[in-house]
Parts: sequence; structure tokens; C-alpha cells
Amino acid sequence: MATTIPQKTMVKASAKKWVYLLEEGSAQMRDLLGGKGAGLAEMARLGLPVPPGFTITTAACNAYFQEGNKFPAEMWKQVEEALAVVEERTGKKFGDAKNPLLVSVRSGAKFSMPGMMDTVLNLGLNDQTAQGLVALSGNERFVWDAYRRLLQMFGKIVLDLPAIKFEDILDHYKEKRGTKSDTDLTIEDLKAITAEFKQIIRSEKDVDFPQEPKQQLEMAVQAVFDSWFGKRAVDYRNFHRIPHGLGTAANVVAMVFGNLGPDSGTGVAFTRDPATGEKALFGEYLLNAQGEDVVAGIRTPRPISQLAQEMPAAHQELQDISDTLEKHYREMQDVEFTVEKGKLWMLQTRTGKRTAQAAVKIAVDMVQEGLITEKEAVGRVEPGQIDLLLHPRFDPQAKEKAILLAKGLNASPGAAVGMAAFDADTAEVWGKEGKPVILVRPETNPDDVHGMLLAQGILTSRGGATSHAAVVARGLGKPCVAGVEEIKIDAQARQFSANGQTVQEGDYLSLDGGTGEVFFGELPTVRPKFEEEHDLQMLLAWADKIRRLGVWANADYPRDAVRARSFGAEGIGLARTEHMFFEEERLPLVQQMILAASEEERKEALDRLLPIQKEDFKGIFRAMDGLPVVIRLIDPPLHEFLPRYEELVVEVTELKVRNEDLPRLAEREKLLHAVEGMREANPMLGLRGVRLGILFPEINKMQVRAIMEAALEVKDEGVDARPEIMIPLVGLVQELKIMRQLLEKVAEEVTAEKGKRIEYKFGTMIELPRAALTADEIAKYAEFFSFGTNDLTQTTMGISRDDAEGKFLLHYVQEGIILNNPFQTLDQEGVGKLVEMGVRLGRATKPELKVGICGEHGGDPASIAFFHRVGLDYVSCSPFRVPVARLAAAHAALGGERGDI
Amino acid sequence: MATTIPQKTMVKASAKKWVYLLEEGSAQMRDLLGGKGAGLAEMARLGLPVPPGFTITTAACNAYFQEGNKFPAEMWKQVEEALAVVEERTGKKFGDAKNPLLVSVRSGAKFSMPGMMDTVLNLGLNDQTAQGLVALSGNERFVWDAYRRLLQMFGKIVLDLPAIKFEDILDHYKEKRGTKSDTDLTIEDLKAITAEFKQIIRSEKDVDFPQEPKQQLEMAVQAVFDSWFGKRAVDYRNFHRIPHGLGTAANVVAMVFGNLGPDSGTGVAFTRDPATGEKALFGEYLLNAQGEDVVAGIRTPRPISQLAQEMPAAHQELQDISDTLEKHYREMQDVEFTVEKGKLWMLQTRTGKRTAQAAVKIAVDMVQEGLITEKEAVGRVEPGQIDLLLHPRFDPQAKEKAILLAKGLNASPGAAVGMAAFDADTAEVWGKEGKPVILVRPETNPDDVHGMLLAQGILTSRGGATSHAAVVARGLGKPCVAGVEEIKIDAQARQFSANGQTVQEGDYLSLDGGTGEVFFGELPTVRPKFEEEHDLQMLLAWADKIRRLGVWANADYPRDAVRARSFGAEGIGLARTEHMFFEEERLPLVQQMILAASEEERKEALDRLLPIQKEDFKGIFRAMDGLPVVIRLIDPPLHEFLPRYEELVVEVTELKVRNEDLPRLAEREKLLHAVEGMREANPMLGLRGVRLGILFPEINKMQVRAIMEAALEVKDEGVDARPEIMIPLVGLVQELKIMRQLLEKVAEEVTAEKGKRIEYKFGTMIELPRAALTADEIAKYAEFFSFGTNDLTQTTMGISRDDAEGKFLLHYVQEGIILNNPFQTLDQEGVGKLVEMGVRLGRATKPELKVGICGEHGGDPASIAFFHRVGLDYVSCSPFRVPVARLAAAHAALGGERGDI
Repeated sequence: MATTIPQKTMVKASAKKWVYLLEEGSAQMRDLLGGKGAGLAEMARLGLPVPPGFTITTAACNAYFQEGNKFPAEMWKQVEEALAVVEERTGKKFGDAKNPLLVSVRSGAKFSMPGMMDTVLNLGLNDQTAQGLVALSGNERFVWDAYRRLLQMFGKIVLDLPAIKFEDILDHYKEKRGTKSDTDLTIEDLKAITAEFKQIIRSEKDVDFPQEPKQQLEMAVQAVFDSWFGKRAVDYRNFHRIPHGLGTAANVVAMVFGNLGPDSGTGVAFTRDPATGEKALFGEYLLNAQGEDVVAGIRTPRPISQLAQEMPAAHQELQDISDTLEKHYREMQDVEFTVEKGKLWMLQTRTGKRTAQAAVKIAVDMVQEGLITEKEAVGRVEPGQIDLLLHPRFDPQAKEKAILLAKGLNASPGAAVGMAAFDADTAEVWGKEGKPVILVRPETNPDDVHGMLLAQGILTSRGGATSHAAVVARGLGKPCVAGVEEIKIDAQARQFSANGQTVQEGDYLSLDGGTGEVFFGELPTVRPKFEEEHDLQMLLAWADKIRRLGVWANADYPRDAVRARSFGAEGIGLARTEHMFFEEERLPLVQQMILAASEEERKEALDRLLPIQKEDFKGIFRAMDGLPVVIRLIDPPLHEFLPRYEELVVEVTELKVRNEDLPRLAEREKLLHAVEGMREANPMLGLRGVRLGILFPEINKMQVRAIMEAALEVKDEGVDARPEIMIPLVGLVQELKIMRQLLEKVAEEVTAEKGKRIEYKFGTMIELPRAALTADEIAKYAEFFSFGTNDLTQTTMGISRDDAEGKFLLHYVQEGIILNNPFQTLDQEGVGKLVEMGVRLGRATKPELKVGICGEHGGDPASIAFFHRVGLDYVSCSPFRVPVARLAAAHAALGGERGDI
Repeated sequence: MATTIPQKTMVKASAKKWVYLLEEGSAQMRDLLGGKGAGLAEMARLGLPVPPGFTITTAACNAYFQEGNKFPAEMWKQVEEALAVVEERTGKKFGDAKNPLLVSVRSGAKFSMPGMMDTVLNLGLNDQTAQGLVALSGNERFVWDAYRRLLQMFGKIVLDLPAIKFEDILDHYKEKRGTKSDTDLTIEDLKAITAEFKQIIRSEKDVDFPQEPKQQLEMAVQAVFDSWFGKRAVDYRNFHRIPHGLGTAANVVAMVFGNLGPDSGTGVAFTRDPATGEKALFGEYLLNAQGEDVVAGIRTPRPISQLAQEMPAAHQELQDISDTLEKHYREMQDVEFTVEKGKLWMLQTRTGKRTAQAAVKIAVDMVQEGLITEKEAVGRVEPGQIDLLLHPRFDPQAKEKAILLAKGLNASPGAAVGMAAFDADTAEVWGKEGKPVILVRPETNPDDVHGMLLAQGILTSRGGATSHAAVVARGLGKPCVAGVEEIKIDAQARQFSANGQTVQEGDYLSLDGGTGEVFFGELPTVRPKFEEEHDLQMLLAWADKIRRLGVWANADYPRDAVRARSFGAEGIGLARTEHMFFEEERLPLVQQMILAASEEERKEALDRLLPIQKEDFKGIFRAMDGLPVVIRLIDPPLHEFLPRYEELVVEVTELKVRNEDLPRLAEREKLLHAVEGMREANPMLGLRGVRLGILFPEINKMQVRAIMEAALEVKDEGVDARPEIMIPLVGLVQELKIMRQLLEKVAEEVTAEKGKRIEYKFGTMIELPRAALTADEIAKYAEFFSFGTNDLTQTTMGISRDDAEGKFLLHYVQEGIILNNPFQTLDQEGVGKLVEMGVRLGRATKPELKVGICGEHGGDPASIAFFHRVGLDYVSCSPFRVPVARLAAAHAALGGERGDI
């Protein structure tokens, strides 16, 4: 087992350096020093004003756990040596009664992590040093305030006592003074509070607050380490898949005080506006305060711009440092600072979080400023974020004031405002009258689509993120809040109640599809226009240069195709022909075709459908002039086009019992029997897709005729139509072989009739496990594959999308039985294996095979990274997801994740 | 492209030997000479009396097609050379007017194949040779009869004229003579007929019947070759997957005549009785006849035993030859012979077809006679055949006389007789009264099981071979005829009609589940007893020594387990706990548990179910003392235990409209809402299996407690119980991990309570593609796998068993889109790939993993061969299939198919 260890590593390991002075570290040492330590070190190296201090490494933390919660040998000695350096630099001594050094201890892991110990300030204070500090500072109030803060933080964070115990005492004294502000408390009050705080520690923990400063420090460092395995931190790491072996560092830094008077203060700042991305210092500060006061919300902080008036020099220095940090890090920073008697000290710097809008603007601006490359800019914007940029948004301030009725599933993002309508017909009527409508239904089904088309948003009380409502809404780019169980819909009374409020039909509602919130009343919205999002357009243009994956869109109507193309789609990856069938004027024809008693009757209905389908296709071909359009032949079971069995049963039973209107009874009974004959126990696995084509070839033949006639007719307009005809649900190679032969004949017939020729392709969906497993065979008869990952997920996992989400899938996600909803992010270990196999086998037979994916996963960044990896040619997603997919595809080409979470 | 051709092949190829004299061939040259040619050659080699002749090879046939339907060079020359040898041996000359040689031409491929040209006799006759033959034989009638036969066969077979044209003329002359027998026709009649036959050929084909014998021969050989690509032959080969490149041989043999007078005759014989297997010459013959007369049915042939009286010498010689052939081939033979003026000639020998019963007896007898080894005996009996041996059978003569009502799907074999009952309750009542019942339903569902249990057989008008009725019937070993569309059931009137007959409730019906026939009235049946099938028992004992695969049985009740063990099952591979729930007295408890409003109510119901389940398990453990019992925890969606939604809707609607019995309305409405809340769009992919366990762990916990208590309690009786607890529908490793931990705790609790210990295992079903794809992960938490190939087939192929068969699957099988019903024979290319992967991945993680299969495929011979190949440890099937599986497993171990079809 002897391996050669590089010389450098050995020295480091044998040296056992557990402690680094700030200036000994750097930004690159994030693994060892944690994010906070590395930031402080880097600032120290840059010569920025950072108080003296040192970092105890993550390696020390890990050694601590390995040795049974004991500090590793030498560590404390190194701490004391480092402390000595800090003492020397500050000219103060830790625990010295006359000239005491105070320090802060803060945790800092590689990734910022909620649930870990944060900060203990003012360590080093005790009854004696407090006296010395009074003498030294001449500010007794400051010292007692600092002492009570130490006791409070130490008690809460190090000794794990309930915060409320300390706050109650503080409140009691403030009440006595008739004030709400700490600053109104007197020195005597603070002394008394300090005494009471000590008493709490004594009575609750059966020990005295340690007067020995080094013991304080030791306990604080130990608390930092212990917090690494605190329950919330462990849960957080499990959820985010952060390894438990990383450990946390502990940062010990000399205190500087923002609460030494009106020439002192403390604040936080972003180097650019994190909401808009504007290039200007942004943040807030408080004079005469310690850090925690800024966020505590007791005093209202001032905007950073005012600092220019109040402390012009400090403001200028902060601005300069901000520029230095941005140039150095080539990234927007989020900093903490303190001004002690006019002198600026930097206490933290890290990459700043930002809104989607800001992320795009900053990335683009920084390229233009020469700070970063186009590739870097692309890599810095999370694909998921930009989705929101294209949906209407509510004014955040308006939201705060509004009445929140309930919260449900954020099924399709964006903001929608409209009048509640309780059925699709009403929604349609109102919509046509130009009224804004929110369609409110227990759940939706294809019968509701005509109402959904005209609604601003959709609200359902049942169903999950891939329920019919959610899927259609996302497809339409309409906001949807689904599965809001708190709302009780009374369809009879045409109202629902929630949160004590009753909403009548016609009342205004506002839905935030991004958060799942449902508000009463009309909230103001803004709808961004893609054409006007110049920064985003530029960023996506750069992304297009980087990505290898094509980005196509799923679009069933010409209007969707137009939109998709405007968003940058390079083709239509899925045009569902049956969605056209559901439209109101067509449904009776479709029903006539299905229920046809004779061959002629069926043919008659098909003949009337043909010109309608043709017009649809023409529209799509015009919109996608010169680009491929994949048209899927009819897929759903035919009974989906007929009235619902459940409703027919009720109607027939009623008519029977009443024994009136016998002609209608006869008609309805006949229909009921027809529907009954077509019912299926598991329609998902039933007579649909290519199986319909095999049994009723005339439907597919009509569709192919419509496609070919449309393509050849628009040729006269100068439109270059490129149809790719897709046969769905193939599981057996014979199915594809037979259908392709049959349909190719139709295509050639039409070509001959029209006397001209266009290019067309035949291909298939790979949406059954068997298709993926036998893709080598299937590829013999396909010019392209398109993975239908929705159905492939259903069959591979044995989970019905329509049933599972509410019934058990969300519970599974909550319990960590599965990491993601597999209908949103592809299950790579299971379904992904089949996708990979399908690609490999298909290309083995036909290396030039074009392979795409047209399931919902085509718009999901994590899934797109996978599709890039397994070598797909393109992804196809809903038009509104096209920008997201363009960016995600570029990220995939850049090598996936950026490393920070 | 230069490859080294072995010397031997080169010689053969360059020699271009297209024609073999019979004695130049052998039984081993079946590929080249076809079955018939090889048989004749082998007899010639053995020195048996075979007329001189030769075989034109299959290679010649293939060359014929390669050269555009032309005989290959040299072939005809070789034919003429061979013919010269035949002339020499017979002392006759082909086409000689004085002493003419006549020959027969018969096709003969490697595999016997319907749809190919069969035989043309008497080639060489023409107007001149006929005269010569009259002079030679002194039998004018014989000659003209031979000539009209030649014209008839040549016209029909070589010239492809409709047979009816010739038969009409023959009938016309017979009518004129007032006879039905050819032998009553006069010489003048035959002459006139001959003239008319020539006229038909002339008028239909515009050519004269060729008078040149060599032209006759050439045309006959060409017809043999052409028939290889006749439509029926091609279809047959496609269906049976016989390569089209094999080709057929043509056998040319000197004619011998059985119609030369009362000292001549012709017949067919089996060396043993093909119905019973008894060792005695069996067959029939006609005196003064040519071969075709025996099978034509115009004259009644005599049993071969009479030949001993009529021609004792020929009979003795035939008996001796029969013994020689059996000893030589070590197999029962089917021979053709002709006696020409007292001299016996052998015209064909081949392996004889036989019934299941005969197959078993012959195989066992031949071992005892020292003819074959035990292994050979096992290999000679088709596993599928012996299934029938264990089911009741109708007397074939009684069937002939009975009224056939209709024919449906042979869903479960065997004969059943009983009174028609139109619902399960009636069937149950009558059954308990001791009356034999046939349950007649449009289709069945779990509510009907109590009636099915007491019925003799099941008849449905809807549903396929894997419909509920079919599956349950096979599981129960009860005959079932399913999907009989001709019967129109009138449930109201309690009757059905078919074939003009009306069957009232209570009328007797007889079902043949092996043929799908439904008879009116009571047909006599015999039910064989396994214990009395001594030959079968012996054969299976030999099979057991050969097979590697274990054979277990699926059994839900103690009575099934007892039967399974008596059939040789070595364990229970699947005990479905929920089938126990459906029994009448338990269902209310199960429903109470499902609908429980409170935790206590549910617990109460579970507490009452526990002792019932425990008793069931005890019974099974006692039956399987010392053998493993795999118990599957509850699997189906809970709504399957509640009244059907459809019926509730009707009832509630009726009650509502009538507005009476409001308390019942309230109660029913509540139930309806509960059922509605549980309904699923695709229950197959819904809340079932382990998902139920995760959501309602108390049910699984009760079940594991019942299993463990039962196992530990029977230990006191000296019973060695070996429970293996199986968690169904696992798709995610976490599901199994969580459930196993939970349930192992229960098992250990019970162990601690009882103060004793037994061995038990935890494992899972692999029935979802994802489970197979991630079997390496899943194996970490499973001690055994059992492939649930029913569900795995449904999900992998995306085909719902309940819906597909009637709707499209049978159509697919008919059209050759798929070769077999994948629910009967495993789809090896698709589903099989996942099975293979599951085994490989599972064993990679855990080499000692026990792997079995418990789907319907466990009893299917072709599937068993596959399971053997991929290394499963055992198959589990319904008790009645255990003997089949034992034999099939032995076949698999012997190397699969025997090579002939």
C-alpha cells in the first residue's frame, strides 16, 4: 500500500498547521479556510483594512471529530501563538485588565450553510476587563452594552440556551423605561441586565459564565465545530448533497467597534444593486451600532448613499474598496464593514446574491467593462432564474399589502390577475368579452382547454406540478397555482372560501405562479417583453455560440410557433396534432369520426377534418420557414375526445329514473355504450399512439395527407417547409415498419398529385422502455428519434403522472425517498439509463440518426445537462422555456455546475 | 476477400452433385435430401425393401431460384443418369411403350410443411405406355385408373387447376353408375374420364397434357421447387421462423402398385399406438388401392391387425421392419407401405406424431426397453403437452354428437360440465349445495372470485387470455373459455343465446377449455389423477435429476399449497396476501380498515384481521414444512377492495332523483366520495405495492406480525416454517430500505415476544423497469429477487393487460406484428433484456442473491428456457403447471429445443 506522497503535501501534513493568520491565506484556500476565512485572507493580502486575526482550519475541525471531539494536538498552541501576533499588532492583550483585546469568533464553511453557529462578539470581556475598558474608552455605557451582548450571544449560541430567556429580561427593562430602543437604556439598566444574564446562565447551566477569556475563546471555537453536526446543518447538507466531511473553519478576529459614538457605525453593502444590477454601491448602515443591530430591525438603517454625507471619507474609501474587490474577484461582492471612530474596517466579502434581472445585467455589464469573458458571463446566470424574467411580475410592495388567501403549488410561474370564473365556458365568454379571468376549478381536463386559453391564470384545488392544469398552463406560458387544498370550492354556489374570506364568481383574484400565492383583489403587474430584454438577448446570443445542443420548441398552434421562434427556437420538436382536435368547432367532427357507424361516415368526417388540419400545419410551416417541424400523429386514446363516462352514467341514470324524454335517453344510452366499449382500466397503457394507427390507419393517412398538402402548398408562397412525421408509442419495430410503409405511400401519392417535392422525414418517439431497449432494431426504420420522457418516466418508474403527485410523489420528495419530482427533473439513474441506451443502440444502427427529446424535461436545466452529456442533438421545450434551455445548454457545454451552491 | 475454403467443401462444391441415388444418402443428410429423402435413403441403407429411386437435393432447389427459376447446369443430366440406374434396377424403361417405368415425384423439405406440393404418382404414363402397360399387366382397368389418376394429380398439383373440376367429372360418372365407389366404375367409364380430364387441361391451360414422360417429370420437379415459395408455405415458414433459404428436395421413386388386385394393397402404420402409446403396430390399409385412397375416406380402411389374417407374410415383414426401424431410429415411426402382388415395399418413414399420453408412455417404455436413455426420454416429451394430462377431458365421441354453441378463446384447459349460473352469488349457493356450476359472466372481477371458487368452469363473453377470468381460472386450475363474442348474455332475463339456441339459467353446459368449445348439455368427462399417472411421475423424476432450475408454485391458500407440493413444487414463490382479503367474511373488515375515520378504528380492523391472516399462513407453512414460502405483502390499490365506483354512481343518482331513503343516500354518498377520492386514472401505475406500505405502514406491519407469529407458533407443532417476506413494486432503493428496516423491527419484536427464533428473509419483486435498471442498488437491501414478469411486461411494453388483449394485442399476434402474446411467453428481446440486466446487476452487488420469477411466464416452457439461460434460481408457477415446469426446466438444461418442429 506504499504510495508516493508528493513532497509538498508531506511537509504540509507533517507540519500540522491548524491555524493561519489572515495574511497567510488566500481566496484559493476556501477548502481549508472556509468561505469567510478565505474572503478575509484575500482582503488582507490585498492590503485592505481588515482587523488582525486568524483562522482555525476546517482540517482542525475534522481532526476534532476524529479524535472524539477533542482539539488536535498542537492546535491550541498555534491558536495562542496567533493570538500573540494579534495582540502585538493591536497593542492590546487578551484578558489584560488594563488594555484588553476583544475578539469575535465566527464559523465559516466552504459553503454558506444555515443552521450553523454564526457569530459571538466581544469575547475577552469579563468583570475585570470591562472595568479596564471603561477606563480606556471613557465610555461606560458602551462597555456594559458590549458585556451584556457577550453574555447574551454566549448564552444563546455557545451554551445553547433559549434566546427568549434573554430577550424577556431586555424587554422588561425597556418596558420599565417606556422605550422600544436599546439605546434608551441607562448604564444602570445595562449593569442590572448583565447581572441577570449571568444569573440565567448559572441557573440554567449550573455553571458560572467563564471569566477566563481563553476559556471563553476555547468554548466558542468548540461551539463552532460542534455546530457542524447540528441537526439543521446535517439536514441542509443531506438535502443539498454537501459532503459531511468538509468541516467548518473558525475565524478569530480582533474586535472593532461601530458603537463607540456618532463617529462610529456598521453596515452591509453590495458592490452593485442586487435587485436591478445597476452599477452603484447598494446597502444600509447604522451609526453607533454593532453589526447585529443592522439586521435586527429595531432601528431603521439608512441607505448607503447617505453615508456620503455623514462620513464622506469612509464612504469614499468603501467605494474604492468596492471597486478594488470587484476588479479583483471579477464578480459582484456582498461586504460587511464597521467604522470605528472614523476608521473603516472590512469584516467580510463574498459573492453577492442577486435577482434574475440583476444577474443578467451584471453579467452583461461586466463583459462590457472588460472584467469577464462572454463565457464567464454565460456561466454566471442560473438558467432557472431567467425563466421568471419573461413572466409578468407583481410589484413586491403591493404584495405586502394584499390579502393572502392561500398558498399552493407553484405550478407555472408568473403573475396573473383576473375575475374568478368557476367553469371553462364562463371563462371563455368573459375572455372573449375582453375581461381578465382566473379559471378556478377543482382540477382541469381537456374539456377545459377552451377556457384556459382565454384565462389569465389557472387555480386548482387538486393536482400536482404535472397535473393537466399545470402542464397545459406551462405549455401556454400562463401562471398556475395548483393543488391549493385550503380552498373549498362550492361549484353550486359558484364561490370558494379560504383564510376566512369568501370569493364569489366575478371577484378579482391575483395569482403568483412563482411562489404559489393566491391573493384577494387586483394587484398591479408588469409583463416584460422579450424583445425589450436587451441584456438577456445579448447573453443568450453568447450562450448560442457556446452550446452544442439545439434548442427547439413544442408548439401545437401557429401562434405558439411564432412565439417559439421569437424566443430563439431552431425548430418545432413536437406539434401535437390532437390538441387541434380539442378545439370547440372541431370536436364534433372528431366525435363523428370516432362514433361513425359506417366506413363512409368515418371518411366523411375525416374529409371535413383534413382542410382544418391542413390550415393549422400551413400556419406552423409559415412560422417555421426553413426550420424543421416535428409533427406527431394522433396519440391519445379516442375516448378522450368523447364525453366523460362518469357524466354520461349520471345523465342516463337520471333519465331512466325520471322515465321522460325517451328519445334523448336512447341517444345518450347509445353514446354511453360506445364510451363504455372504449373505456380502459389503464388508458395510459392502452389503445393509443401507433396502436391507433395500426387499427384505424385512415386517421393517420388523413393526417399525413394534410401535412404533405400543407407543405407543398406553402411552397408556392416561397415557404420552405420541413415536416418530420413522428409516429408515437412505438414499442415493437414491426409497428413502425408497417406504419412507415403505409404513410410513406401517402406522402408519395400527394407528392405525385402536386407534381412537386419537398424533403420530409419519418421518425418515432422513444417513450416506452421496450423502445429504448430495442432501439437498434427501431432505428432501422426511423430517420429520427425523439425521447418522450414524460411517458418514459411513467412506464419506467411505474408511476402515473395523473395520480401520483398528490397521492404519494410529493410525500416521497418530502421524505427524501426520491430527490426530485421525476416529472420535472429527469431520473438519471433509472430513466436516464434507458435514454442513454436508446441513443447508443440507435446510433449503432444508424450513426446519422437525429436524436432529440420533447418531454417536459427539455426545459429543465439539470436534465438538459444530462441530455448534453449523452449526446442528444437537441432538446425541445415549451416556447417560454426556450431562453432557459438556450442558457442551460450553454452551461452544459461549459461543463455543468459552477461549483458553488 | 480471399478466404480459405476447406478442401472437402471445395470438392463437393466443384463436384456439383445435385442428385443422390437413395442408397447414396442417409438419415444424417436431412438438410440436403429433406426429411422424406433422408428417410428413404436410410431405409435403403438398412437393406429394407424400398423401390429404386433418387433424390434431387435442396441445394438444387436453391440453385434453381438463384438462376431465375432454371435448373442448375448438370442437374438434368444427373437426373437422367440416376433414372438410367432406376431403369436398370427395375428392368423397365421410362417412356418405353412395351415395358414402361412409372415413377412418383414427392417434395420433401427438412421440416414437413403444409402448403407445399405433395405427390404426383404414375408419371411416365401416356397414351402409348398405357397400352404397353395393359399388355404387360393384363389389367386394363388398373391402367386406365392409373392414367386418370395421373391426369388428375398432374392437373391439380403441377398445373394448379382447381381440384373440383376433376372431382365433378368423377362424381358425374359415379352418379351415372349409381355408386359412390371408384372401384365400381367400368373400364369404359375410366377411359371416358381420362378423355375428359385431358380436355379440361387443354381448355383451361391451352396446352395438351405432355405425352413425353421426361417432360412430365421435368414439370413435376419444377412444380415441387416452385411450391417452396407458394403463399401458404411462405406464411407457414414466417410463422414458424423457418428460414426461407432451406429449399426443398424432390424424390423420384419407381412406382409400386397397391392396386394390382386383391393380392395388392397400401397402408400407413405407426410402430406404436399414437393415442395410448401401447407397443403394437397401429394403422390402417386398403386392399387393391393406391396411397391416396387410404386418406381420401371414400372406402373405409381396415385396421392393421386384420392384415395378419389377410396377408400374414406381409404383416410379419411389416412388423419386423417396424422393429428394425424403431431399434434403428430409437423412436416411434410413422411409415407408408404398399404391397404389390404380395411383395411389401416401404415408401416412407418418419418420427410419428402422438398424443401427450402416448408421448409419455412411449418415452418411459423405451427407457425400460433399453432403447433410449432417461435424458432422451425427457427430451422427447413436449412440456406443453403434459399440461393436458392433468385436466379433465371429454370423451371425443361424445363431443362429436353434442350441440356446439360457440367457440371462444381457450383460456384455461380442461373439460367442465355444470349448470349455467349468471352471477357469482348464485354460483356460490349452488356450489355449496353440491350442484356443478358453470359461471357465465360478460367478464369477471375480484367480486366474482367467491363464485369462481365453487364453479366447475368459467365462461365469459369478453376478455382475452390474460383477462381476470382467464388468469384466475388458470390459477385455480379450472377450465375457462373466454371472450366468446357470439354469446349474447341477457343478465335481466338470466339467459344467453348462441347458434340459435337459448340457454336458461340452470341449463347444463359443457366447456372444453383446451379447444375453446362451448357445448349445450352434459358431456361425460374423465379427470386423471396425478398420483395415478405413473409414467408421468417417472418421467418427471428423471427430469428432476436433469434440471438446474428450481420449480416452485404460486399459492394463496393452504389447499393450493398442498396441491402444489403433491405436484412436486419445491417452495411457494408467491403467496398473495390480498387474495385472502377478498374472501367474503373478510372483505367487510378490510373495508372498515380502509375507510376508518380514526387511527383507532383502523387499528381495530387490523387487529381483527391479524388472527385470520395468521391462520392462513399457518396452513401454508404446514403444507410447505421445510420449504421456503415467499409471502408478498399487500399489493393492489385499496379501492379494489371497495364497491365499484360505477355502481355507486348509479345507485346514488337513482336515490337522489327518487328523493327517498335519505339515510341510505347519505351513507352511499359518503362511500361514493371515499371511492372517488381513491380513484386513479391508471391504477396499474398508482398507489399500490410498497407505496401503500410507505403511506400506511400499519397494514404491512400487521401482515409481518401475522407471518412471524404463524411461523413461530407452528414451530411448536414441529413444523419448519421458512417465510420469505416480499415487498412489491419497489422502484426506488429508498422504498425498500425504509420498509425493510421498519418491518425487520416488527419481525424481531415478535421473535422477542415468542422467545424463539426462525430463519426469515426479506426481498423484493422486480416488476418495474427502474427496479431492473437499478438492481445493483436494490440488491443491497434484498436477500432475494423475484421477477414479477406480468407487471414488468406491462410497464416495459406500455401495455395494460386488462385492456390490450381484446383491443389490439390479439390483432397484433394475428398480423405477425408480435410473435407471441407477451403475457403468455416472455418477450425476450425487450422484457427479457431487463430480466437479464436485473440478474446481472443484482448478483454483481450480492453474488449469493437468490433470484426467481413468479409471473405467469413461470409456467411457460419457452420462457422457462430463457430463465434457465439467464441463470435464475427458480421459477414459480400455478400448481397445475408445476409438472410442465419441471419438464420444461429439464429441457432447458438439455439445451433447449430439439431441432425439429
